[in-house]
Amino acid sequence: MENLTLNCARTLSFVDPADITDMGTEMEKNNRALHEKRGKGNDFLGWVDLPSSITTEELSDMEATASLLKSKNIEILVVIGIGGSYLGTRAVIEALSDSFTHLKPVKSPLVLFAGQNISEDYLAELRSLLKTREYALMVISKSGTTTEPAIAFRMLKQDIEEKYGKEEARSRIVAITDASRGALRKLAETEGYKTYVIPDDVGGRYSVLTPVGLVAIAVAGFDIRELVRGASDMERMSGPEVPFNENLPAQYAAVRNLLYRKGKTVEIMVNYNPKLHYFSEWWKQLYGESEGKEGKGIFPASVDFTSDLHSMGQYIQEGERILFETVLSVKSPAASVVIPADPDNLDGLNFLAGKRVDEVNKMAELGTALAHVDGGVPNILIEIPLLNEYYIGQLIYFFEIACGMSGYTLGVNPFDQPGVEAYKKNMFALLEKPGFEKETAELKKRL
Amino acid sequence: MENLTLNCARTLSFVDPADITDMGTEMEKNNRALHEKRGKGNDFLGWVDLPSSITTEELSDMEATASLLKSKNIEILVVIGIGGSYLGTRAVIEALSDSFTHLKPVKSPLVLFAGQNISEDYLAELRSLLKTREYALMVISKSGTTTEPAIAFRMLKQDIEEKYGKEEARSRIVAITDASRGALRKLAETEGYKTYVIPDDVGGRYSVLTPVGLVAIAVAGFDIRELVRGASDMERMSGPEVPFNENLPAQYAAVRNLLYRKGKTVEIMVNYNPKLHYFSEWWKQLYGESEGKEGKGIFPASVDFTSDLHSMGQYIQEGERILFETVLSVKSPAASVVIPADPDNLDGLNFLAGKRVDEVNKMAELGTALAHVDGGVPNILIEIPLLNEYYIGQLIYFFEIACGMSGYTLGVNPFDQPGVEAYKKNMFALLEKPGFEKETAELKKRL
Repeated sequence: MENLTLNCARTLSFVDPADITDMGTEMEKNNRALHEKRGKGNDFLGWVDLPSSITTEELSDMEATASLLKSKNIEILVVIGIGGSYLGTRAVIEALSDSFTHLKPVKSPLVLFAGQNISEDYLAELRSLLKTREYALMVISKSGTTTEPAIAFRMLKQDIEEKYGKEEARSRIVAITDASRGALRKLAETEGYKTYVIPDDVGGRYSVLTPVGLVAIAVAGFDIRELVRGASDMERMSGPEVPFNENLPAQYAAVRNLLYRKGKTVEIMVNYNPKLHYFSEWWKQLYGESEGKEGKGIFPASVDFTSDLHSMGQYIQEGERILFETVLSVKSPAASVVIPADPDNLDGLNFLAGKRVDEVNKMAELGTALAHVDGGVPNILIEIPLLNEYYIGQLIYFFEIACGMSGYTLGVNPFDQPGVEAYKKNMFALLEKPGFEKETAELKKRL
Repeated sequence: MENLTLNCARTLSFVDPADITDMGTEMEKNNRALHEKRGKGNDFLGWVDLPSSITTEELSDMEATASLLKSKNIEILVVIGIGGSYLGTRAVIEALSDSFTHLKPVKSPLVLFAGQNISEDYLAELRSLLKTREYALMVISKSGTTTEPAIAFRMLKQDIEEKYGKEEARSRIVAITDASRGALRKLAETEGYKTYVIPDDVGGRYSVLTPVGLVAIAVAGFDIRELVRGASDMERMSGPEVPFNENLPAQYAAVRNLLYRKGKTVEIMVNYNPKLHYFSEWWKQLYGESEGKEGKGIFPASVDFTSDLHSMGQYIQEGERILFETVLSVKSPAASVVIPADPDNLDGLNFLAGKRVDEVNKMAELGTALAHVDGGVPNILIEIPLLNEYYIGQLIYFFEIACGMSGYTLGVNPFDQPGVEAYKKNMFALLEKPGFEKETAELKKRL
């Protein structure tokens, strides 16, 4: 059985191998603090042993909900949520879907998103689409009052009730929310929606393996048992007793911190398969929101190669030397496409005839890593054998536990997000929300 | 008639207004150097007066090609190209399209892309889609030998010939390439494809207003005359005789360079309308590839707000203070959606009832700008009245001419991209391409 692998060899001309080894003790300590729930933010460590503690009954219940929705022949499931209630679901579904799934006949409903922005055009265009389609709604919000999803749900709830009648609409709405408190819990109980609980001790960006992610992923037709099994195996492989030299997430956390200390302030998550685009977006939230505080933290960026070698490649090769790359590589593609020979060979590609397209992709990957290292950009390589539920599960937990260890080394609380409130407070003041009268008055003076 | 506006007021607590004024002379000099083709890279300044020099005949010819393809009732146009032969087209089309255009009945063919990556899965999935659809191909390559598009075109050419027969396939392929040289020019003439010329003096990232972008944009159903008119008006408004205090692109170039000198090494392009996502990708290539050289240049990043306020917002508010933001704002959305009242008001949103969704979006925008400035992130604001062809045209030329001036101030040649070759050389050596024997031998020693 192959597992995710980590290769830091192409960072060793930038960091001293002895420095990596020296961080082992600290990383082992950080890992124990996470597992024993002793460190900063220890009210939000429910995700640490989440994969191994999900029960078969819980998974069966989520699968049953997926089946029930599908039995209504819905074409579209609209997931209403933002941040951690959006990115993980989207990351997993896009990683596992056909690139043209919106244009092909599909066995499972398409998952579309709402409440992840406040774009008037987006909402209008979604509503016009839903008028002509069979659909269901899943609304995800701890409080039920987060502005973006609350606005979207207020409207889409009206629409679905108009379309199907109040009774049938109730059976087409799933709410994922707090166990007992909040507006959405209250509404769901009044209406009799099927509900799932967002655990109190799991923050949004660590929530993809709770019902927040799993129910929609099941509706989209993917195997949530395999996803959880992959995460659970990575939980075991990076457990509190695993020594640093065998603990891959701990090594990733150590190396990226050493690179940061050398002035590498930007980490670029690189893929060579565009299906991983949203996985990088999920990763950006996980790391940016966990570490970007107190004037510190590595700025998370991402590229889809080789596309972006033709846009960001020049900068990465020769721009400010503040970068390092972490490459997410899939060893074997699902498809097999061989480059054909051409008797005329005008394009000069016959030297590739008979090779699989992926062989070219892999040589682009290797050639790029070597070129970027030569140009002063350290390169971390994370490989998974296949792009499937199991290995996505390994990746998710790998990055989560590494993020916890990394944040502790940085000296911050990786489980809060105090900076997210600043814009909300201003927005509410500007919108003259009741309770913000003082802030409104203050802000108006500035404008 | 309203135009694009620029507001740098929220950078003035970070840069001295006198320093901005002081850069006026230099910017005016840079702008004249661009228009008089005297500066670095002056072989590649064909884009400077491109908008005003496109003729009605040229536009009519491109529109006729679009009509001809549409008369074949194609459902899909596959545009094969990478970098500048991909991003501009995609940026304009996505900015102007319905967010769910792939799921709705459409009047014009969908534009899909190929040859912008080397993903085996992507190519396999595209080919399986095309088997069931009516389509045409547009291949864009100066040389015809760029690896990614050449691989894709070699296969898709076979497919389209198999599907329609060689004769009909010829009338379904448009080639955009060099005027006289190269593999694609030779093939196109042998086969008798309709062709367009990529001008010698326009680099890929400045080519969206040549046939490279315009033909596909016309096929997608958008008004290329308006696009060019917008660019042409911006060309006039930023001409060589326009003084610095009236020249908005010059001011943008000046302010971002001053911020860079203060240690702001990352510029984040921000939108509040997800349709502008690919416009930011186009901008990243334009600025990253033009400026990221000689160990210098601002790292270009992008976010889609408010979505990414719930992922990157924490970092931007409180992380490393190496950031500034440039916000691309659309004053009026196309749709009109009013937030309804709800007698129960469980979600607490009734204070918004009767407001348009966009009013909330705009207050999020303003509230965020204020919060981020308070947090140490300078904020540049670029506004357009509407998201249409005309203002996209203004934006394109605004960023192009500003990029030229900015690069000259930075002291680099903004029109070359020497660093893009490094990975290609390695890739060819690893793939044992004829002519790379020496590099192959050297590289093999390293592995």
